[in-house]
Amino acid sequence: MKNKFFTQRVCVCALLATNIAYSHKQRRNEETMIYGVVLAGGVGSRMGNMGKPKQYLLIGDKPILIHTLEKFYMQSEFEKVLVLCPVEWLSHTKNLIRRYIPDKDRIVVLEGGDTRNETIMNAIDYIEQEGNLDQETIIVTHDSVRPFVTQRILEENIRYAKEYGACDTAVAATDTIVCSEDNVVISDIPERRKMYQGQTPQTFQAMKLKELYQALTPAEKELLTDAAKIFVMKGEKVHIVEGEVFNIKITYPYDLRVAEALLKV
Amino acid sequence: MKNKFFTQRVCVCALLATNIAYSHKQRRNEETMIYGVVLAGGVGSRMGNMGKPKQYLLIGDKPILIHTLEKFYMQSEFEKVLVLCPVEWLSHTKNLIRRYIPDKDRIVVLEGGDTRNETIMNAIDYIEQEGNLDQETIIVTHDSVRPFVTQRILEENIRYAKEYGACDTAVAATDTIVCSEDNVVISDIPERRKMYQGQTPQTFQAMKLKELYQALTPAEKELLTDAAKIFVMKGEKVHIVEGEVFNIKITYPYDLRVAEALLKV
Repeated sequence: MKNKFFTQRVCVCALLATNIAYSHKQRRNEETMIYGVVLAGGVGSRMGNMGKPKQYLLIGDKPILIHTLEKFYMQSEFEKVLVLCPVEWLSHTKNLIRRYIPDKDRIVVLEGGDTRNETIMNAIDYIEQEGNLDQETIIVTHDSVRPFVTQRILEENIRYAKEYGACDTAVAATDTIVCSEDNVVISDIPERRKMYQGQTPQTFQAMKLKELYQALTPAEKELLTDAAKIFVMKGEKVHIVEGEVFNIKITYPYDLRVAEALLKV
Repeated sequence: MKNKFFTQRVCVCALLATNIAYSHKQRRNEETMIYGVVLAGGVGSRMGNMGKPKQYLLIGDKPILIHTLEKFYMQSEFEKVLVLCPVEWLSHTKNLIRRYIPDKDRIVVLEGGDTRNETIMNAIDYIEQEGNLDQETIIVTHDSVRPFVTQRILEENIRYAKEYGACDTAVAATDTIVCSEDNVVISDIPERRKMYQGQTPQTFQAMKLKELYQALTPAEKELLTDAAKIFVMKGEKVHIVEGEVFNIKITYPYDLRVAEALLKV
């Protein structure tokens, strides 16, 4: 992993300057519009009372969100990278991007919705307003608090979504997975070789996701908090992209320490 | 967590000397025989070719196995702590314990079996040969590569197993759990609030586990690699003990770095 991380950092530096030109060249050669959609709407109640949402906490010398945006920014296949955050953090987020990212025009900060899926719908609405929403348009949705996503993961997400319409990043479960209907007694321990721990990105054809989501009843919307699940429930195939064990979601204070350790390699 | 870890270390130092006397006093007052069973049989293929099984790798200045045994050793409710390891590592394991643990007599090194459950059966056979196996006898089985288990977790395991016959340590899933029947396409994304990531200890009334295990067909034995699952499959209740996110299993080289970071807090 040491080499991977090192290579990534070198690439970040080398590519940032030439990224815009390359992106536009790509766009001309490639009909499919692809947007990065970074979900920074969480208020992070599991992190304890630390004053600000966890995506704004520092690891190393930069906010977690900026680490994540750098990975998205250097992926030249993205037409734009949309960042969706709580309304009261809009100006802070814009300021951070101005400070850390050289070409802020390719990153657009938008207001998130009340739920994860509503936030994704806001992103799709933006793409529609830009006149770029058609059957082929792809959104690569990602947790802002997963800063260790790799270019390989992003590229496979794009490739699978083009081919199959939807894909989800996951790693084979290292833990035994246990189900409990009542949260007291175990009701099932499914076969481990069939079990995965979901990560992000989750990547979709945007129009298809919008159609499926709009067809849900309010009760179904309440239940289907995971966009990939909407596809699965409607009988649509969602392909698995192999994630990485280090593509962690920073959820608990414990994860912050792990993230600091990962940054040092 | 800082305080917890600090307290634990102070306790290790303070308790090691007085542990034996306390243990024997407990035994007289308490009919239930309780054994710690530390499973160190794995060859660790997921760690890559590092020459020795992962339980013998160092974190900080001690092998992982020794960190784990210290936690078990200081739990005075254990009559003995049984360590089961591959036959070719028996003498190395005994040497390590001689070097690091002051009262080596309370720790017994035994040969593991071909599978996790066969290894547990070897432990139960030993307890039977000692004349200590009855309906009440409890074994607290634990992965040797989970060195961050706490006394609270061990105590709750003992308490729940006394009360209910079987329990399993798990944490509410932080990841979305994904099922795939064919390892290509997602077949289900179960509701996250019902999902747990299993850890250890898994704690059982030993005779009950032995009876259930011996009643299995060879095909069932092949399938039921998890001892708690044997109980679940036979309709027996297994209670959930709340684990800790930091009670990690050291499986991949990545986990070694996380473990080093955890030791420093």
